[in-house]
Amino acid sequence: MGASATTTPELYAMNGGDGRFSYAKNSFLQGHSVNASKEKIGEAIAEKLDLKILLSTSKTIRIVDVGCSVGPNTFLAIQNIIESIERKYQAQYLNINQKPEFQVFFNDLTSNDFNTLFSSLPPNRQYFAAGVPGSFHGRLFPEGSIHFFYSCIALHILSKAPEELLDKNSPSWNKGRIHYINAPDEVVNAYATQYAKGIEIFLDARAKEMVSGGMAVMSFPANPTGIPYSQTFTGAMFELLESSLLDLVKEGKISEAQVDSFNLPMYVPSLEEMMELVQKNGCFDIEKMELTSPGVHASMTNTSSMGKAIVMHVRAGMERMLIQHFGSEIIDELFNRYAKKFEEFPHHVLPSKKVQLFVVLKRK
Amino acid sequence: MGASATTTPELYAMNGGDGRFSYAKNSFLQGHSVNASKEKIGEAIAEKLDLKILLSTSKTIRIVDVGCSVGPNTFLAIQNIIESIERKYQAQYLNINQKPEFQVFFNDLTSNDFNTLFSSLPPNRQYFAAGVPGSFHGRLFPEGSIHFFYSCIALHILSKAPEELLDKNSPSWNKGRIHYINAPDEVVNAYATQYAKGIEIFLDARAKEMVSGGMAVMSFPANPTGIPYSQTFTGAMFELLESSLLDLVKEGKISEAQVDSFNLPMYVPSLEEMMELVQKNGCFDIEKMELTSPGVHASMTNTSSMGKAIVMHVRAGMERMLIQHFGSEIIDELFNRYAKKFEEFPHHVLPSKKVQLFVVLKRK
Repeated sequence: MGASATTTPELYAMNGGDGRFSYAKNSFLQGHSVNASKEKIGEAIAEKLDLKILLSTSKTIRIVDVGCSVGPNTFLAIQNIIESIERKYQAQYLNINQKPEFQVFFNDLTSNDFNTLFSSLPPNRQYFAAGVPGSFHGRLFPEGSIHFFYSCIALHILSKAPEELLDKNSPSWNKGRIHYINAPDEVVNAYATQYAKGIEIFLDARAKEMVSGGMAVMSFPANPTGIPYSQTFTGAMFELLESSLLDLVKEGKISEAQVDSFNLPMYVPSLEEMMELVQKNGCFDIEKMELTSPGVHASMTNTSSMGKAIVMHVRAGMERMLIQHFGSEIIDELFNRYAKKFEEFPHHVLPSKKVQLFVVLKRK
Repeated sequence: MGASATTTPELYAMNGGDGRFSYAKNSFLQGHSVNASKEKIGEAIAEKLDLKILLSTSKTIRIVDVGCSVGPNTFLAIQNIIESIERKYQAQYLNINQKPEFQVFFNDLTSNDFNTLFSSLPPNRQYFAAGVPGSFHGRLFPEGSIHFFYSCIALHILSKAPEELLDKNSPSWNKGRIHYINAPDEVVNAYATQYAKGIEIFLDARAKEMVSGGMAVMSFPANPTGIPYSQTFTGAMFELLESSLLDLVKEGKISEAQVDSFNLPMYVPSLEEMMELVQKNGCFDIEKMELTSPGVHASMTNTSSMGKAIVMHVRAGMERMLIQHFGSEIIDELFNRYAKKFEEFPHHVLPSKKVQLFVVLKRK
């Protein structure tokens, strides 16, 4: 993973600790995603996971949460996966005295707050826990050692923003923008290409690390075909952030050049893009790939307190990279401004959209 | 692992971060131990590790550092183990294109500073790294999954100080002392019993976790038979700490009751005690068990700067539990006093002694 010219990839990690702006305290919306996919994961395991094959070479089932952050969402998701596998085990075997053991690897960037993650591990967990620091854009585990990969709202993060966005002589120069909303095709394409490269590396690494018959379940923001990106929730969130930064430029609090040289290292793919990348890799059967709702409903988002919560979530997730680029002095003002814009944002457009991709892959 | 009446086991971890009193900055003496055992470990691997057996069931060699703390010692030790295994591999096999992969688990208490550990992992490491939080007095890994256990200066730490030391009605009441130096036999026995229980649990857990043919290499403080504990280096270190605390009692800065209720959760066994515990467990062949020098020489210790360094080492290792029990207000004064006493300590008695036990076990 190369260093980005605009921000340090290691700062893409969520806020640590358990303070006011921590991810631990500001991640219940992602929690809705975990809940929304709970049943789907249970179904995928019940219908598609063949434990007899997996347990023919190992007495241990190894599970990974890729991009786990700090909790508590990761613990809920892992608990659900283990319970689903245990149900499946009881359905496939009669001898429940020989239940498999579980080893769970919590993975995120090295800058993730593993100390907080470890100290909040469920005391009564029925698994052996380990933390694995490192980017999912690369190898993390030995060959053929993992039985189940899980990832929730992490795969939209790039290893870095495309370099050409910084090149004043390129048609991809992303002047006055921090993302590809309302940008020329060249900028969108630069992002899409960077994303495709990253997912190719991701799939290649996971294919090596997984055992044959192993399962990968991933959900992440997706762009419903035919809907302009700026009208999706993720698109709107980033547009409001950009607009808040541009206000600060107008007031002379940050420079135009600072905004020009900052590009969010995120891309929201369509189902078709992801489908093509998985097929190109060729190591996986696609058991399921569908657009879903992120589990946040109209009644939840259409309130002022939810609006505030969303702003806090964005801050917990992006504060570190914003501070690195723009300095800590402007951060409170930036988010106050963002909160105000967010209040005026038409929340009601969100919940009707299926803006998340739910993917179940099986290693051939 | 139950909670101690005197200190919280989780606070037995070394100081984190990389500040003045951090373990990262105050662990070069342990580094001498790592160096001193480097050659011995290489020999044990060359002569006793059968890679054909280990690799018959796995393409990955899994290595654990039990009680790794923060670094850099753990990285040096792991590097040495991996290089020794690779040399052995080249001696046993001709096809070096199919070299095994290595997965290294860095284990320490949950309160260990894993964030600092992870951020200082060698960038060019030839292994997959994971952190495993939890006490070695219990299971940490799935059954039959580990090929090599390593531990340096950790096994003398108890899961807790013996409870009966706090009982005023017991002959083991440890009034006016913080350890078993100059204590009645009942106190020494309480410590020895607690230690034996802990090592039984340790050996039982490791026996389950290791593959047949796997190796465990451990070195830790030991008490040479026939030498009074107070004349060993560890014994003297603790006696000086006790004496410093008693000075603070005399001056009314801490209470007598505070000293009475504090007992160091550490025990330094003899070779014979350890031998008996391993034989009682029965799952291991003893390939080597010998008293060694900790690798610190007269020329090093007999200087004022080394004396200061040792004091800093003790502080890095024990500050957290001392602060929890006595409060942070007295900690600077305590260590100033300790440093002064240490200066008057006859360093020359130390290096001639073999005060470390080097143990190589092989899982049957």
